[in-house]
Amino acid sequence: MLQPVLPDVQLTPTLEDARRASIDLASAPTALKNAALGAIADRLRGSVDTILTANRADLAAGEKNGLTVGLLDRLALDEARVAALADAVMQIALLTDPVGEVVRGSTMPNAIKLSQVRVPFGVIGVIYEARPNVTVDLAALALKSGNAVVLRGGSAAENTNRVLVALVQDAIESVGLPRAAVQTIDPFGRAGATELMKARGHVDVLIPRGSASLIRTVVTEANVPVIETGSGVVHIFLDESANEQWAIDIVHNSKVQRPSVCNALETLLVHRSAAARVLPGVLDKLTEAGVTIHADARVRALYPTAIAATDEDWSTEYMSLDVSVAIVDSLDEAITHIRQYSTGHTESIITNDLGNAERFLNEVDSASVVVNASTRFTDGAEFGFGAEVGISTQKLHARGPMGLPELTSTKWILRGSGQVRA
Amino acid sequence: MLQPVLPDVQLTPTLEDARRASIDLASAPTALKNAALGAIADRLRGSVDTILTANRADLAAGEKNGLTVGLLDRLALDEARVAALADAVMQIALLTDPVGEVVRGSTMPNAIKLSQVRVPFGVIGVIYEARPNVTVDLAALALKSGNAVVLRGGSAAENTNRVLVALVQDAIESVGLPRAAVQTIDPFGRAGATELMKARGHVDVLIPRGSASLIRTVVTEANVPVIETGSGVVHIFLDESANEQWAIDIVHNSKVQRPSVCNALETLLVHRSAAARVLPGVLDKLTEAGVTIHADARVRALYPTAIAATDEDWSTEYMSLDVSVAIVDSLDEAITHIRQYSTGHTESIITNDLGNAERFLNEVDSASVVVNASTRFTDGAEFGFGAEVGISTQKLHARGPMGLPELTSTKWILRGSGQVRA
Repeated sequence: MLQPVLPDVQLTPTLEDARRASIDLASAPTALKNAALGAIADRLRGSVDTILTANRADLAAGEKNGLTVGLLDRLALDEARVAALADAVMQIALLTDPVGEVVRGSTMPNAIKLSQVRVPFGVIGVIYEARPNVTVDLAALALKSGNAVVLRGGSAAENTNRVLVALVQDAIESVGLPRAAVQTIDPFGRAGATELMKARGHVDVLIPRGSASLIRTVVTEANVPVIETGSGVVHIFLDESANEQWAIDIVHNSKVQRPSVCNALETLLVHRSAAARVLPGVLDKLTEAGVTIHADARVRALYPTAIAATDEDWSTEYMSLDVSVAIVDSLDEAITHIRQYSTGHTESIITNDLGNAERFLNEVDSASVVVNASTRFTDGAEFGFGAEVGISTQKLHARGPMGLPELTSTKWILRGSGQVRA
Repeated sequence: MLQPVLPDVQLTPTLEDARRASIDLASAPTALKNAALGAIADRLRGSVDTILTANRADLAAGEKNGLTVGLLDRLALDEARVAALADAVMQIALLTDPVGEVVRGSTMPNAIKLSQVRVPFGVIGVIYEARPNVTVDLAALALKSGNAVVLRGGSAAENTNRVLVALVQDAIESVGLPRAAVQTIDPFGRAGATELMKARGHVDVLIPRGSASLIRTVVTEANVPVIETGSGVVHIFLDESANEQWAIDIVHNSKVQRPSVCNALETLLVHRSAAARVLPGVLDKLTEAGVTIHADARVRALYPTAIAATDEDWSTEYMSLDVSVAIVDSLDEAITHIRQYSTGHTESIITNDLGNAERFLNEVDSASVVVNASTRFTDGAEFGFGAEVGISTQKLHARGPMGLPELTSTKWILRGSGQVRA
């Protein structure tokens, strides 16, 4: 990589501490990392009062500053949520350590032993919004994968995060690992976040977690490598041959089961030859669940209670009980619509036509492409990863749900006995 | 990924053509892609005169514009070099097609069949300098891996590249694949290169190939995902127990065999306890080969004909018959020096101490770490990849020599039968 070019700025000591800590972490045995995770879980359980006091201060400030009910809910902790955080940390301790895995290897014709080994990235940066659970989750995931992490949480969770990071640092130190393995740069404010995005050579990978606008800012401002996560304008296409009951159940589940998450349905496309047969049943079930239908003219002709969709609706990630619905003339038109408006997260087709299923799988360019199942299955836990760093919607390095191995790089190791190149 | 944000600029039609071509390429059978490669090789062999005429025009302009001898040599083609280009294309036809490889898979507890499948990136951008071989190599590698490619070569090779790209396009079209699979944006000049770097959503990955300054520009300017390649401030450390003959042979081979490439040695570090024993022999052999020794004071005390190293020498990629040499007090000091000055490409230790070898392998944070062998082995062909896209010195996605699989992403495919999430 290019040598560090960061001028003398305020983050330099923090980032240099992180780098030094990362060297210790890279060779820390799994048992020691797991001991640190156990210590974090214990301290979380033993510090509920301190955590909740800090959290109440953030909530009070948030109410004063007019945070929405949704944001306040994400920010809020209670005894049960703190216990859940501790449980999540213990789950991470149970996962396989990815560090040291030999990915490939061979003996070269000249007898050099060649192997490609999984190694930690080094220093991971995370920029996120007011969700204290991200603080603990990412600290634990980074630790287990042998990385130092530099956290920049939202200012709305500043008090909670300060308490959580100090607690995590105490726990890490208690087992003999460096405190600087987990650091927050919240005290540096927005300027700190900007520096973190530009700290090429100091930060090996930066992960933004939060709203589309946060992610867009990081992706366009950063000159460190970024893994883009999360934003999902998710589609389902009901093909001509769609099974009606599957269509009803899958669309309902994809939209209603948890509307605020990135794998929830946002746009429903229906083949014109299936519309009269399946659409009323599908939309009735959504309407019963309180979903607002934003529809094009052809859908409204069939289902007059729908409201008119605007041009903006097709690219909107509602994250709420809203769905946009359009009728298309063909599979081609559905694929073209998806290619234009999708964020490349998850798309599903409901069909009994094998050829159409294969075309959809091949031609839809998204992290996760589904036939005859809910879009809600694009999820690290559902895929069996145990814990999820986020869902990557870019194509470089990691695509789709990211587990611990996605927080690592690799290194080539050559063991020779005097060989030179001819 | 974020939706395209490119305003209406001059590259838009080119990039949209590339995207459309990429859809055809993604599902093109291996046999068809190989037929295109065969057609490219045939046309290269059949168009030597046209290619050399264009190349002579570039060479004449280059001489007029004062290009260095080294750059003119990289730019120059002759009959043998064109034949070698055609051979290289046929070698790529012989490689295994990475597209469609199932990387992992499982059956979920609810019976959904889950698989992670290798898919092309889509549209690859390449920004490089006046090396016509890169035009043909990257077009062939992109084609074989199912990607469309948009090339921005150096203006010094403009005539040669125009002829080569037209010939490649004719060949691709002759087998029924879209011409726009391979395009050049050289006619758009520097403004085109700048747009390419900012074309988020249109370019899935951008690969800069060339000088450190070119790479730095791309890495800092781009907001599309970049794979950083090439720059190598490569170190060898002669440990206390280094075998003298291995030290002499490996240092000589690493520096002299091909000094202009990124895996050639630039800095030699020597343990103080080994210096008197091994350094004179090592430096004599380098001096005989015409290498200029830039040394610190302790080395010069032992080897007075060396010239004094400046602070700049330690971070210089000479790519010439120059080497910087320093004595260090310990393995720790060697690792610290390497961590400070290395570009993370390749480092080698010469030692008989098993513990020191393991520490070096673990603690040196480079793409390729070598024990008792030449640094020149960090190479796609040596690793058995058959062809090399470049050598990545970043940690995201690909690290070290990149073969065809490194030009692909993956996609998760879920095949269900009505499943919804509980």
